[in-house]
Amino acid sequence: MTSIRQAACIGGGVIGGAWAARFLLGGIDVSIYDPHPEAKRIVGEVLANAERAYAMLTMAPLPPKGRLTFCASVEEAVGGADWIQESVPERADLKRNVLTEIDRYADPTALIGSSTSGIMPTELQRDMKYPERMFVAHPYNPVYLLPLAELVGGERTSPETLELAKARLAPIGMKGVILKKEIEAFVGDRLLEAIWREGLWLIHDDICDTETLDDVIRYSFGMRWAQMGLFETYRIAGGEAGMRHFLAQFGPCLSWPWTKLTDVVDLDDALVDKIAAQSDAQSGARGIRELERIRDENLVGIMQALKAGDGGKGWGSGKVLADFEKHLWSNGGARAGGRGGESGGEAGDAPDFSRPLRLVDTRVSAAWVDYNGHMTEHRYLQVFGDTSDALLRLIGVDFAYVEKGQSYYTVETHIRHLGEAKLGQALYATLQVLSIDEKRIQYFTTIHDAETGNVLATAEQLMLHVDSKAGKSSAAPADILARLTPIAQAHAMLPVPEGVGRSVGQKR
Amino acid sequence: MTSIRQAACIGGGVIGGAWAARFLLGGIDVSIYDPHPEAKRIVGEVLANAERAYAMLTMAPLPPKGRLTFCASVEEAVGGADWIQESVPERADLKRNVLTEIDRYADPTALIGSSTSGIMPTELQRDMKYPERMFVAHPYNPVYLLPLAELVGGERTSPETLELAKARLAPIGMKGVILKKEIEAFVGDRLLEAIWREGLWLIHDDICDTETLDDVIRYSFGMRWAQMGLFETYRIAGGEAGMRHFLAQFGPCLSWPWTKLTDVVDLDDALVDKIAAQSDAQSGARGIRELERIRDENLVGIMQALKAGDGGKGWGSGKVLADFEKHLWSNGGARAGGRGGESGGEAGDAPDFSRPLRLVDTRVSAAWVDYNGHMTEHRYLQVFGDTSDALLRLIGVDFAYVEKGQSYYTVETHIRHLGEAKLGQALYATLQVLSIDEKRIQYFTTIHDAETGNVLATAEQLMLHVDSKAGKSSAAPADILARLTPIAQAHAMLPVPEGVGRSVGQKR
Repeated sequence: MTSIRQAACIGGGVIGGAWAARFLLGGIDVSIYDPHPEAKRIVGEVLANAERAYAMLTMAPLPPKGRLTFCASVEEAVGGADWIQESVPERADLKRNVLTEIDRYADPTALIGSSTSGIMPTELQRDMKYPERMFVAHPYNPVYLLPLAELVGGERTSPETLELAKARLAPIGMKGVILKKEIEAFVGDRLLEAIWREGLWLIHDDICDTETLDDVIRYSFGMRWAQMGLFETYRIAGGEAGMRHFLAQFGPCLSWPWTKLTDVVDLDDALVDKIAAQSDAQSGARGIRELERIRDENLVGIMQALKAGDGGKGWGSGKVLADFEKHLWSNGGARAGGRGGESGGEAGDAPDFSRPLRLVDTRVSAAWVDYNGHMTEHRYLQVFGDTSDALLRLIGVDFAYVEKGQSYYTVETHIRHLGEAKLGQALYATLQVLSIDEKRIQYFTTIHDAETGNVLATAEQLMLHVDSKAGKSSAAPADILARLTPIAQAHAMLPVPEGVGRSVGQKR
Repeated sequence: MTSIRQAACIGGGVIGGAWAARFLLGGIDVSIYDPHPEAKRIVGEVLANAERAYAMLTMAPLPPKGRLTFCASVEEAVGGADWIQESVPERADLKRNVLTEIDRYADPTALIGSSTSGIMPTELQRDMKYPERMFVAHPYNPVYLLPLAELVGGERTSPETLELAKARLAPIGMKGVILKKEIEAFVGDRLLEAIWREGLWLIHDDICDTETLDDVIRYSFGMRWAQMGLFETYRIAGGEAGMRHFLAQFGPCLSWPWTKLTDVVDLDDALVDKIAAQSDAQSGARGIRELERIRDENLVGIMQALKAGDGGKGWGSGKVLADFEKHLWSNGGARAGGRGGESGGEAGDAPDFSRPLRLVDTRVSAAWVDYNGHMTEHRYLQVFGDTSDALLRLIGVDFAYVEKGQSYYTVETHIRHLGEAKLGQALYATLQVLSIDEKRIQYFTTIHDAETGNVLATAEQLMLHVDSKAGKSSAAPADILARLTPIAQAHAMLPVPEGVGRSVGQKR
């Protein structure tokens, strides 16, 4: 894949900071320029949200986090960058001046994206020396989770720029969508403005309150739109007869007098007061931080659910996540087995075989708990399975290896539950190899509370090397065994963990 | 909860049939009147889709499916019903006539809902003798999954009717939302029309094609709207300063010249051709049945993901699902442990203790498989856990029991993988009790391929009765043991299953 090597963010508010988080968690170094006195705090908060979300989002091996540098000028920030993202306030003159300054100091081949939600790129690139590499990359909040970037070129943008931008966004889990023509507000905000205008009328006319309006959306078409859009949904509504049939049915409605859209609502003080009061009644019991947390957890859950869509191939944003993870897995071999997300500083260190391997650091996500907030039984096995996968990557059984038709399969597992994990609790898992031969790996995994180190659960497991096409066990190749053997030899020196060899219900 | 005792569906197309499916899977008998020659086939197809979806949606004990009767007249269909749902074609005169006929034959206290997506209830109830119990209950496709029903009263509808309708929809997993005033198209279709009109302009003007427009929605705000709506999302966007701040920022845009909404697009042949061709290019590779299947699986996944939202309490449609499941669990004690969904005829039979208990019938859902379509390791433990739960319900450890502070916890598990389960494969699980005492249950569960009966995996497990408040083990009360003991005694006569007492890697 074509990747961004080094990024610069000019403007580090909620949007610029979230772009920075995307880049950093994708393993890309980021330089930020933002003269706002609170810029460091704001970026820090957004990055913390993003790290929390990524820890839930994927068990794929995140790369070592990129290095974050705050710079004193645009010139300093853009030096060496091959992607520069402008996210300053939404005023055409301000944006144009900043973009012109970026253009002056940046490498002429660097791509320059603007986060504007409405201003046409032709207007923004007017004074640039190298306008062909400038475009709009309009993201959606929260940028670190929602994959969309609307890519819009101006009159002087080269078509290659848009294709290159799209290609470079994929490895950080983003979906670049190229528009055919520039218009003010592009596509997403046009649609949002339409629904917003009608929504204001419905509140103005007391048809419903804001909570009811939100409920109408989220209990119905909101769920359709998270996975398909307007046209594909309506194609299904048209049934076997298809889109043409649907249009024939729906077309005449356009001239009915249903909508008030052809009038412009007056957002006067009375309407603002009404909306603010209704919104307080609806959501006021929760602070913005809590709503953000809930939103992010829900987005993670939706993307994970859609990752299983279309028979496990992934659908919509879930497909984007699956592709992102494949990319991470295929790059994961370059690293030392551990996860980048939580373990931070450890990533990249040479593994120490003289003690059990710490292979997974994670946190109990909302999707893992029952209605009492306790981690459900099978999620323990999920963590054990992730730990097994990390061991396999460490010895070279990575995504590419499995794709070629060989793998290790778990054939037997013995679990003991010794404590309880709760929502949000930080966990880590350590693995000790017990014995190996050319086909088998027997090993013992322990899930610990990250704060106290207390043991919450253990698993003794047996994996068998298999030829998946032949559907039977086979000896692992020499290079895999060469990586596995030193671990097994070192671990053979360790004491046998308490609990090994137990059958269920056996007296101690 | 206030429940529907008996339902009638007048009109059995895609919408009426899906209402029927909701009722039937909620355990309610349904009479259908629809003179369409294909009515039975259509209802049968919708019901099959719904049963497939429910088998994935929940492991809660569905009640025995209601009885479905096709009737020869409105009079016959509405006899004995306390909820009548009209879903005939969208023409005011036709609907009014049908509703007037329903009113004539129905019990005067029965509720009468219309599925109309736009006609005002005042117009529909005009000729009724008992108009106070008539209202609009506007659902969204697929009605068996999407929870929303917009409840709209006419001039002569009593307020009690709307509250009663809302209460009666909850036990079948639906969210009734009451509007304050009637308007044509209500709230949902107003919002949909707004976005549809703007969308048509974007295609007409070649800003993007239908696939790009759908992508813009589903990779961005579609995912926000599946969980929150318009106003709560914007409240977050407003940050700590809240809704008023957001409105101040966004308000002026309303008078900007962005939107084309104040014009009415001409949906002429050229535009219809363009949209149909683009939609074919976007979705034509998949048939409508396949798109429906993908949509339903995605909806199930999204609702399940949102069920884990807000710290496991459930959020939006996930909260509706959680409440639906609590209702099912609390009613599940009345039944004989098995699931209603797949096992069908067996539900309600007295359990046979002379052989291992068949407690779970399920199907490998899309959320359970890896990218190769194989059921992932921890999902086997999920099925084992569901089987344990079914045993517990059978002996009286149901939702209410757990809420009171006692339960059985799994402390030890030994799993063997003997075969592979694939996406969509039907499975069932049988359980044999090995030994019990006043605190412990040791048992052996087997997952079978439903078609061949072949064993795919086994688990030996040990559960301990605990006082959750005290956080330690305790003797189970006498009534629980009295239900458990006859099972254990009968199962003690069975041969000990192969594999019991194994430790990991033990030679046979």
